[in-house]
Parts: sequence; C-alpha cells; structure tokens
Amino acid sequence: MNEGQRARRPGGRSARVTAEVHQAVTDLISERGYGNFTVGEVAARAGVADSSIYRRWGNLETLLSDVALTRLNARSPMPDTGSLDGDLRTYAANVAREITGPDGLAVVRLAVALSGNGQQGLQAGDDLRAERMRQLQSMLDRARERGENAPDALGVLDHILAPMYIRVLFGIVPLTPDYIDGLVDRLL
Amino acid sequence: MNEGQRARRPGGRSARVTAEVHQAVTDLISERGYGNFTVGEVAARAGVADSSIYRRWGNLETLLSDVALTRLNARSPMPDTGSLDGDLRTYAANVAREITGPDGLAVVRLAVALSGNGQQGLQAGDDLRAERMRQLQSMLDRARERGENAPDALGVLDHILAPMYIRVLFGIVPLTPDYIDGLVDRLL
Repeated sequence: MNEGQRARRPGGRSARVTAEVHQAVTDLISERGYGNFTVGEVAARAGVADSSIYRRWGNLETLLSDVALTRLNARSPMPDTGSLDGDLRTYAANVAREITGPDGLAVVRLAVALSGNGQQGLQAGDDLRAERMRQLQSMLDRARERGENAPDALGVLDHILAPMYIRVLFGIVPLTPDYIDGLVDRLL
Repeated sequence: MNEGQRARRPGGRSARVTAEVHQAVTDLISERGYGNFTVGEVAARAGVADSSIYRRWGNLETLLSDVALTRLNARSPMPDTGSLDGDLRTYAANVAREITGPDGLAVVRLAVALSGNGQQGLQAGDDLRAERMRQLQSMLDRARERGENAPDALGVLDHILAPMYIRVLFGIVPLTPDYIDGLVDRLL
C-alpha cells in the first residue's frame, strides 16, 4: 500500500501515524540501539504528540514489541507449502535471512532486551513471543492434521531457532543453507 | 582463598584489587543492569583509582568479560568424569544451574550485551566465548582420545547451550533434569 492509498481509505490517518511511528522507532534503533531513546524522541521524530503514542501503545516496551512483531510478520511469514518438511525448511531459511540481514540482529536483540527491561518489558516480550509461537503452532497443527509426525513448537525453538539466534548473537555467521537444512534434518 | 591469605602472599595487593573490582562490577550489574554504569563508578565502589582499572583491563567491556569468565570458570568448571556421556551431562547440569541461579541471567545477558557494545565489546565477547569454547573442545578431545565418538564444540553450542540460553532469556523456565538430559541424549 502506498502513502496515497493509505491516506484515502477510512482510518487512513491512524494507519499513517502507525507507519510514521514505526519508522521513527526503526531509525532510532539503528542510530542508537535499544534502550537509548524515549517516547518523546520517537514522537518528535514521527511528528506526532507524545500523548498519541501513550494512548495507542501505553509504553515504550509495547511499542518496541509491536514494531518487532510487525516486521517479523511482514518479512518472515509462516509458510504453508503443503508439507512439514517444506514448511520448516522455508521457515528456517526465512528466519535466517531476517536475522542475518540489515538490522536483523536488532530484532533478535530486541527480544532479549525486552526480557531485561522491567515488568512492562517482560510483558511486551512475552506477548511478542507468544504471538509468534502461536503462529508456529498453527503451522505444526496443519502438519498433524495431514497425518505428519510433527515436533512441538518448543522443539522448533530449541533446535532450529535457538542455535540460529545464538550464532547470530555471538557473531558465528554466516548461516549457510547447508547448516540450516542440517538443523531441520536433525529435528525431523 | 580467604582475604587474609590473599593479603599475605606476593601479589596480594593485586589480587585484592582484582577481587574488589570484580565485586563492585557484580554489585553494579545486579543493581542497575549492564550498560548502566561507568569505569569511574566501578572504581569509586571498589575504592581504587580509575587509572588502576584502565591500566589492568583497558576498557569496561574487557573488565565485564573478565568478571563473567572468572565466574563461569569458578562455578561451571569443565568436568572430567572419564566418559563423554558423564562429562556432557555434568557440564549441561552445571550450566543450567548457573544460568537459572541468582544473577545467572546476568551472565547470559552479558554475553549478549557485549556483542552489541561496539568494537571493544565485540572483541571482549569474542575472547570470552573463545576461551570457554577452547575449554569445551579440550573436554571433547579427551573423549576422542579415549576412542569415543564426540560431537564438535559447535554441536554442543547449538544443541545443548543455545536451547538453554534462549529458554532462560525468554523466561521459559525451569530447566528440569529431564529436559537437560533430553538435550544430551538427542546430541549423543
């Protein structure tokens, strides 16, 4: 959707504010890192009032989590290829591309940073992870319904996502296609 | 070694300064979290000159890494039980106890925080991880010398350490003995 379409449809202003605030957060993260800016600075960058941000998101942690989830859903949607093997390989490759791409480390670091950011951060981090785990579980449930022998979502977290996250966080990159396929092979 | 022994032996003052600086760092981390204090504040808390810290450690990141490594080596030493199975189970249980214990999350978060802390942080983090991976590799090499079929250190990172780190970072705890043994079983 381009800016013109967004401005014309009902709710256009709301969607535009959301897009501008998300962009301001993304820019501030890449310039300063997580935890190094305030709601006021996001508002100034986006050209909106502080109160608009508090009204919609409640606090900075929820806003950060919303930005991360929106980005993850846009760039690493859950695949539906018709087989568990295909779904997991596509999903793992998408996640690897996302977390090793530009600003990708920032998304992984957000999930980690939120968990150390007081009660609001913990809650926002839990909500973000719960939503992604729910999507992952739906993918695995579809496989079970087809009669495939699917692992549970925590198995995918432990043996596909966790190794990739830790390797990126520790700078042990790149994540090669062979490496990613090896993780899926081992789990299946 | 108690404080009296440390003070009497040659190099006692140096060891005492190290202990006091390490304690100051540990206290500041638990009070404020990583990234929220300076070398000057560590020096004031430890009762030493800023220059003593810069002379010995060079920068805050190297000091943080030294504190983490000293702590890991003291609390999660590499086991030598005579079998790979025994070594890996003991090692995994020690790491789990450490990262789920008091301040344990702080050690995991340090490793992550260092990687986002500029070039000095990256270097300090790399050194910390390289030293622990070297120790782990020695344990695996001993198994190979006994004729056992050992995984490599990255395999242990991917399938034993990474899942435990990510579960702790994401608040998916406790790490039960059954869960930990399951990780080792799957790798072996």
